[in-house]
This record gives sequence, structure tokens and C-alpha cells, in this order.
Amino acid sequence: MAISNSKLVEIAAANGTPFYIFDAAAIRDRFAQLEQTFGALFGVSYAVKANPNLELLRLVDPFVATFDVSSYKEIERVLAIGCPPERITFSGPAKREAEVRGAVEQRIGELVVESLHEAEVASAHAVELGVRQPILLRINPASGPKHFGVSFSGRASQFGIDEEEVGQALSRIAQLPGLELVGFHIYSGTNSLNPEAIADNMTGFVRIFRAASEQADIRPRKLVFGAGFGLPYGAADEPLDIQAVAAGVEATIRELKAEPRFQSAECVLEMGRWLVGPPGLLVTAVVGEKESRGAHMRLCDAGFNNHLAAFGMMGTVIKRNWRIRNVSNPNAATDKYTLVGPLCTSIDVLATNIELPAVRRGDLLAVENSGAYGLTASPTRFISHPEPREYLLDGETLVDATESELNYWAEIDRTGRLKRSA
Amino acid sequence: MAISNSKLVEIAAANGTPFYIFDAAAIRDRFAQLEQTFGALFGVSYAVKANPNLELLRLVDPFVATFDVSSYKEIERVLAIGCPPERITFSGPAKREAEVRGAVEQRIGELVVESLHEAEVASAHAVELGVRQPILLRINPASGPKHFGVSFSGRASQFGIDEEEVGQALSRIAQLPGLELVGFHIYSGTNSLNPEAIADNMTGFVRIFRAASEQADIRPRKLVFGAGFGLPYGAADEPLDIQAVAAGVEATIRELKAEPRFQSAECVLEMGRWLVGPPGLLVTAVVGEKESRGAHMRLCDAGFNNHLAAFGMMGTVIKRNWRIRNVSNPNAATDKYTLVGPLCTSIDVLATNIELPAVRRGDLLAVENSGAYGLTASPTRFISHPEPREYLLDGETLVDATESELNYWAEIDRTGRLKRSA
Repeated sequence: MAISNSKLVEIAAANGTPFYIFDAAAIRDRFAQLEQTFGALFGVSYAVKANPNLELLRLVDPFVATFDVSSYKEIERVLAIGCPPERITFSGPAKREAEVRGAVEQRIGELVVESLHEAEVASAHAVELGVRQPILLRINPASGPKHFGVSFSGRASQFGIDEEEVGQALSRIAQLPGLELVGFHIYSGTNSLNPEAIADNMTGFVRIFRAASEQADIRPRKLVFGAGFGLPYGAADEPLDIQAVAAGVEATIRELKAEPRFQSAECVLEMGRWLVGPPGLLVTAVVGEKESRGAHMRLCDAGFNNHLAAFGMMGTVIKRNWRIRNVSNPNAATDKYTLVGPLCTSIDVLATNIELPAVRRGDLLAVENSGAYGLTASPTRFISHPEPREYLLDGETLVDATESELNYWAEIDRTGRLKRSA
Repeated sequence: MAISNSKLVEIAAANGTPFYIFDAAAIRDRFAQLEQTFGALFGVSYAVKANPNLELLRLVDPFVATFDVSSYKEIERVLAIGCPPERITFSGPAKREAEVRGAVEQRIGELVVESLHEAEVASAHAVELGVRQPILLRINPASGPKHFGVSFSGRASQFGIDEEEVGQALSRIAQLPGLELVGFHIYSGTNSLNPEAIADNMTGFVRIFRAASEQADIRPRKLVFGAGFGLPYGAADEPLDIQAVAAGVEATIRELKAEPRFQSAECVLEMGRWLVGPPGLLVTAVVGEKESRGAHMRLCDAGFNNHLAAFGMMGTVIKRNWRIRNVSNPNAATDKYTLVGPLCTSIDVLATNIELPAVRRGDLLAVENSGAYGLTASPTRFISHPEPREYLLDGETLVDATESELNYWAEIDRTGRLKRSA
């Protein structure tokens, strides 16, 4: 993490806390690592839901083949940065008819079709609009990945067509005049730190893509691999060894691409978390100290209203502490702390019994791996606290990337006095 | 629940889904029940965080002694409905200095002091402003309540002064010239359905309030009892028997009030969930059907972005299905369904294996007990889906109580076509 503690202190002093900050150089570096490791095999598709901030979309734009969106409004966000619609794919298990229509009207690259009903709706609108809409058929594999944080295949799922139903679905889709099947999409699990598991999983995708392409008798233009690359959220986690992933899939992908049917197939890694998670921090100030029944409690100005995932409330079964550092006081003797947020509810706990350099009132703490599934994945309106600002730090340039209208509180932090907003 | 299915269908047809709706008559009825059962013993304080909608605040205003807020912005919301500041109490474990200052400037009724540091800050600002700020000291009991959904006393806690430290804290507070100690506050657990447990817990509060009042040698003006009345979220739960609660505490409260020291003490029940939860529904439309590996999956247009708690992601350890009804098709033969939302993530599951009258595409479903901790406690910006509208139904009058600016999607549902917002 390249952003210096002194820079964070400077930003907090000028503009208040809490805030998110994304390190542009670190994001470029993640793309460079990916390019170096997988560039000969895969393009990259950025999952906008991971972080839809417009400044961040602009930053990643040069590095990605496509943007994967999951709502119509996300199409608009990507168009707003000047990206042509052909570079957009649209996935999502319960698209509204109006969203499908809108996507076809916008001439997006590919609609990721998740059900036959969606295919029928899309075809009808495409016919009415006088176009053929390219589609990727999403497949839900019959066997689930192993060693993944979250797996959603190998069982009933809202996503895609079950593998065992693909033949039937392809026959029906072939009859739909508004659609052009140009490839396939699988995303069967997320947040894995096990390179062998990821490679095995992707090898399984290749088998499914091959079978489906033969059944449909197409030469696919695009095959999307939902990568599921995880992040080391816990202190004991090791970062994913992406070179081991590449080593595990390289031969399989080269073999596939050597086949005539797949010679023009663009293989794409769809990812969000791995790319923009580590380059992001949530910075919060300690506003209170409390010694309670043997616990050193520290009260922070960021709660689960600002970062649901870090507070263990976004699909986590067993809560664990994320990596946190003491920005103000990095070299002090350590002790164990319980960190809580400002919300008037006992579930607002950031970390329990976490070892940190002495944490005092006024210190800044930085929650690491916070660039993905942060602000927009959090209940920002809960208890009407001020919303964190968002910054992109690009070398020496600090860009205020805040989009919310809800920063009524910002003036307080600068002046120590209240600016009435009512 | 008094809102008819046909009314819900009518609203959905006119304005689209999903939406929240609150039944004014049912809310008044909850207050009437409370008044009838506890009116001789307690006033009511409404916890604004449960549902801060302005129309709803206006509705409950005539029935409540005080509004309890947990952020400065919530003070502004209550002032915005014309409530005088004297009827506001302000609790919260990590108030910013600017919030404390703002509360004193606004001359709110009582600041609920949660730490000595907060007391010192408040006193300094009050002195500077030339006032004495009335405070309630919040106490964290030494023993926790039994049979509560969530308990946060009897252990280390961010809330209030630990009971065993109260004596020391009172000595210090007595020296602070800007403060006037007018009473005490305890809120030690939430969402209990066990009347004996609640009554026992409140009896314990009385013991603590008596001891603290004697130690401080004050005749308290106000004693706030955090009630912790729960709701029957699960199908097997029985509603709380509030008359049994009253029977369990009545003698203790009467006895307290008979003592000279407590003759002018106003006892207050602080609650939110129990009052406004049952009169609220989240109404969602089924936009897709999927039969996957033996499961009947139904895809809804509301996800955890709209109602985090109903999706089991707000402090729930073991997820269970909330009460849901099929508005469109209430009398059909039942089957078991898995209900999911529209979000492109496998954790977006509303109910698993829930028995409902046949659920078809286009049906409306209503999630019950949704009037508290609904919209504003949810990550509404996640994946940029349209935000639910909010309605208050008062007899035949439907009030659009929507506050969000994010309803860009609404036009779609009326016309079946997209209104561009970019």
C-alpha cells in the first residue's frame, strides 16, 4: 500500500473523516501484474458492482476489455465515462423487462442471458427495434468449486442455466430471431485464495464451454471466466498466488485456443474485488476511548453504515477482523483492542481483540482491502450519519471523487463548528 | 394488517415496485395498545433510527413524549416536523464533538451521556454557550438480560457507564458546571418476545435507577427504560404479550413512584421496532421463475439493497424466513419456494424453502414486519438499482412519503419503457 500515513493525516486534517481513498498507482500495478501473468491468455472484464465510482471507472478504462454491469443504471455509469456500448456486458439474475429493453436500445456488447424467459424477452425487444442482440449464455455448473469463500454452483441457483439444461436451452435460443449467441459465461464462486482450486475450477469451465459450443455449433467470440480471485482479508491469510493460477490453467487455455472452433474466441477474466480491493482504504478517526470490564474499547467515526463488509455483515458466516493499521501511531507498543462504530446498536463492531499499536482518541485507523464492496455496498442512510468522502490519489494529485449529495457534515470537520443543513 | 391486497395491487400497478407502505391506522392502534397497557406507568420515547421517515415522524408525534435521536442529523429531522427541541433526547456511543455542540446549541431536552469524556465536552460547550445542559446518564448494567434476541450488557460495551463505575462518574459529573443531571437511561437488550424476561430486566433497571439517584442525591425528572420489545419475525413466533410485561412491572413502578425521591420522575419506554415494525410492509414483484435442481426459485425485484434485515444480514446469526404473503394469489395451493433478489451475488436470498400459495411471475409478495429498520438500514446504492418508494396509507388517503432522490427508475414501471436519467 503506497499511500503514506502522513498523506492520510493531511487529508483528514483538511477534509475530515471518515473517507475512502484509492491509490491510482496501486490499481495500475494490479492490472500490470494481471497483464504480465495472464495477458497472453485472457482479457479483463471489470465488475462495476465492486466499485462503481466514476473516477475509478475512468482510471480502469484503458486496462479493461469490457465492463460487466448488473443493472441498467450501471450501463449509464459506464457510458458516462465515454466508453462505447460495445464494451459492456450486462449480467444479473432478475433483470426487469425495461432493463433488458434499455440494454438492447443502447446496443450494448453482450447481454448475459440468465434464463430462457430473459432470452425470449430480449429477442422480442430486439426484433421490435430491428436489431439482433449478441448474447452470452450463462451456465450454472453441475459441480461446485472447492476451497472457495462462496460457491454458488453445484446446487440450485438463481444464476444462469443449469448445466444439465443447456442443450434444451440452446435449441430454444436458436429459434429466437432477435438474438445472436456469441459465447458463454460462468461465474460459480467468489473470493478464493487457493490457486489450485481456481485453476481446477477454470479447467472445468473450459470443458463446459467446449461442450456448449459444440452443442450450439458456434465458434464463440467470447468466453467469460468468473475468476473468483480472493483477497487476504484476515491477518493470517496469504495473498493469492496468481502465477500458480496461471500455471494451472495455461496449457488448457492454449489447447482450447488451438482448436479451430475457438481460434477467434476472446477469453475474459471477470473480476472486481482482486483489482480494486487492495488499493483502497477506509480511514476512520477514533472519537472515544472506553475501558469496559477489561476490554480496551475504541470508538470510531465509521460504522457498518460506511463499510458493511468490514463489519462482518455481508455474507460472512464467522466474523473475523480485517487488516487494520494505526495511521497516527504506527510504531507504538501494541495492545489488544475492540473497535466499534458510532451507531447506536450493539452489532456495530469493526474488530474484536485486534492487536494494534496503542490506539488513542484522535488517532486515524485505516481499514485495508476496502477498495471493493465498500461505500456503495453499505447502508449509508442508517442513522443519518455523514457519508464518507471518496478520493483518488494519483501521484501527488488528490482527486475528490465523492459522488454523494449527503456530505452535509463536511464543514464540521474543518471548522469544529456546525454548519446547519436544515 | 389492515392494508388490503387489492390496494397493494393498485399501488403497484400505478407506481411500480418495490415499495414500502406504512398503515397509519395500525400505527395509531399500536400506540393505543401501549397507552391502554402502560399509560399509567410510562410515557413513550420513539427511537428515530427505527424509521426516520418525516411523514411517519409527523404521524407519531402526537403520541410520544420524546423523540430519541442518535445523530445530529436526526435532531434536524425531528425539528423539521415542528417538534420543540425540549422533546428530544440524544443518545449514541461515539458522538462527535460537533454533534454534542450542535445539540447544546439547539437546546435539546436531554443529552444521553455515554462516557465521562462526552460529559466533559458537553459541559465545556454549555459553559461557552452560557447554558446548563440537562443530561441523562446512560448506565450499562452489570448483569445482562435473559431471553433477549440481542443483549449488550453484563459484558464490555460501548454504551454508557459500566454500573460498577457509576459512583465515580457521578462524582466527576457533579463537578462539571455546564451539566445538570436530570435522570438516567438504560437500554440493555433488544428484540425479546419473552414478557417475564422483559419485566425482570425492567425490574433490574429500577434497582439501578434507585441506587444511582441516591448516590447522586437527585430527584430524577426522567428515567428511560429501553424496552427491548420484540417482533414475531419468524412464522413460529408468537407476538409479545405486553399485558404480561405490564403485570410483571406494575407493582415495582408504582412502588418507585410512591417514594418521595421519584414522585416527579417521568418513566419513559424507549421503543421503535415494536411500534412501527408491524404496520409496515415491503412489497416486491416476482420478475422471474426458475426451477433449479428441484428448487422452485422465484426472483424478486427487491434485494438486500432494499431490506438488509429481512435478508438475514443485519446481526442475524442463524438466518430464518420472515413472514411473507402472496398478495396476488393468496388462496392458491401452497408449495415451497426459494425467494431471491435481483442482486448479482449469491447471498441475496430472502427466504429458503418457504411455504406460500403458488408464486408466479408477476405476483406481488409482501414482507411483513418491515416498518422498522427497513429502507434506511439497507445498502440502497448497491448495484444502482432503483430505490423503493415509501407510502403512508391513512384511511383512503395514500401519501407519497418517498424522500430519496434516487427514484430515477419510477417512470419505467408506469410506461414499460425507459426514461433516461443520464
